[in-house]
Amino acid sequence: MRTLRLTLAYDGTDFLGWQVQSVGRTVQGELEAAVEKITGERVRLAGAGRTDSGVHALGQVASFRTTTTIPSDKLRLGLESALTAGDLAVLDVADVPEDFHARHSARGKLYRYQVLNSRLRAPLLRRFTWQVRAPLDRAAMREAAAVLVGTHDFSSFRLAGCDARTPVREMRRLELIEREDGVLWIELEASAFLRGMVRAIVGTLVEVGRGRRPASDMPAILASCDRGAAGRSAPACGLTLVRVAYE
Amino acid sequence: MRTLRLTLAYDGTDFLGWQVQSVGRTVQGELEAAVEKITGERVRLAGAGRTDSGVHALGQVASFRTTTTIPSDKLRLGLESALTAGDLAVLDVADVPEDFHARHSARGKLYRYQVLNSRLRAPLLRRFTWQVRAPLDRAAMREAAAVLVGTHDFSSFRLAGCDARTPVREMRRLELIEREDGVLWIELEASAFLRGMVRAIVGTLVEVGRGRRPASDMPAILASCDRGAAGRSAPACGLTLVRVAYE
Repeated sequence: MRTLRLTLAYDGTDFLGWQVQSVGRTVQGELEAAVEKITGERVRLAGAGRTDSGVHALGQVASFRTTTTIPSDKLRLGLESALTAGDLAVLDVADVPEDFHARHSARGKLYRYQVLNSRLRAPLLRRFTWQVRAPLDRAAMREAAAVLVGTHDFSSFRLAGCDARTPVREMRRLELIEREDGVLWIELEASAFLRGMVRAIVGTLVEVGRGRRPASDMPAILASCDRGAAGRSAPACGLTLVRVAYE
Repeated sequence: MRTLRLTLAYDGTDFLGWQVQSVGRTVQGELEAAVEKITGERVRLAGAGRTDSGVHALGQVASFRTTTTIPSDKLRLGLESALTAGDLAVLDVADVPEDFHARHSARGKLYRYQVLNSRLRAPLLRRFTWQVRAPLDRAAMREAAAVLVGTHDFSSFRLAGCDARTPVREMRRLELIEREDGVLWIELEASAFLRGMVRAIVGTLVEVGRGRRPASDMPAILASCDRGAAGRSAPACGLTLVRVAYE
C-alpha cells in the first residue's frame, strides 16, 4: 500500500464544496471519480479542509491509500486529463509516509479572504471577492483583529454542527493587507479552524470597519463564547484556502 | 440633446462580444436595454473598441446621445441596478461635448494579454489567461516585439473583414511584464488597432517564445503584409481592453 498526497487548486464557484454529497458536484467527488478512472480503484479521499460551497483553494491538500503502481507524476497528468472542466487542478502528487493523513497530520492552515471595498463593481474579481460599498475603517478592523491573535476558545465564531472536539485554536496571524483598487486581503493563519470560523470572523471585522460596532467590543465578543454575539458570516465567494502546513 | 460617455468593465466570458447581434448576449445589447429601461429612450451606443466574443474590459468607453435629464451619477446607479448579472459594470457616466464619439474621438488604446506560462493549471485565473505549458523564451519574444514598435502597415496582423480605411497604425509600446506565478502580461499601446491585431501579434510572439520561429523572422513577417505569414491568433480569453485615451 502507498499513501499519496495531492495538492489541489480550485475555483469553488461551481462546486457544492469539498465534501461528497448524495447529489451535486463536489471537489472530493470529482477527484474520487478521476482516481477511479485512472487507477481502477475506488478510494476515499481525506481533505485537509472541508471547504464550504463556493470557497476556493490555491493549496488544498488531500490524501488516500492505494495499491496502484502508477508513478506519481504520471498519476498527476492522468488525473488532470480526467478533470476536463478546468476549474480543478492537481498541482502535485507525492508519495508520503504511510501514516500521513491530510487532515490529522496538518499543523496549520492559511486562509485568505478578499474584500472589494469599493462603490464600483469589479466584474473580473466578482467570483473571488465580497464587495462592500461602504468605506471600511482599516485601523478599527486591525485593532479588533489583534484581539483574536493567540490561543483562545473561538466558540463565538463556530457554526452549529461543528464536530471539533475542542473550540480552542491558536490564531498565529490575522493580518489586513491592502491591495490595488480597493481590494483588501484578510489573512488568517491558525493551528486549525472551526466550522465557519473564518467567515464569522471576517463578517465581524467588516461590521467593525463599517462602524456598526466598536473595535473595543471584540474582547467581550470573544469571551462570550456565543455565536450570536459575533457578526454575520461573510459570503463564501471571498474565501480561499491558500496553504496547509505539515511538520 | 446631451452626449454621455460611459466607462465600462466586463468579464467577457459570457458575452458574444461587444456588438449587438441578431441573437445572443452582447455588451452593447445589454447596455442599450438598460438605457431604455432607465430613460425610456432607445439609443444606439458607440463603443471605442468592438471587443470580440470572450474578450474582457477594464476601461471600455461608449457614448450615446440622449434627451434624458437624469443626472449622470443617478444614471450610473440606475444602469447598474438594471444590469443584474454582475459581469458588466458601469464605472462612470459623464456629460461630454456634443461631438464626442467613443470611437472617432479616441486617440489611443491599451490592451493587455495575459499568458499563464506554466505546466500547472491555475483555476482561479483560467477565465482571464491563455495557458502555455512549454517554457517561453522572454528575451526572444522581447526582441520580436521591439520590431513592431513604431508606425507600420500592420496588414500581417489584420483579420479578413476588417473595415479600417488604412492598415497603418502607430504602436507606441509593446512590453512584456513578468508577474507572479508564471503569469506574463503582454501590453500593447497603439493609436488604434486593426481587427484581430492584438491576438495575431500575441500568437506570433508566443510562437517565437516557444522556439518555433526565430525572433529575426519578425521584420519579414511585418514587411510581407500577409496575414498568412504571421502566427495563429491567441485565444480571446487572455485579452483585456484596459484603457482608451482621448485628448
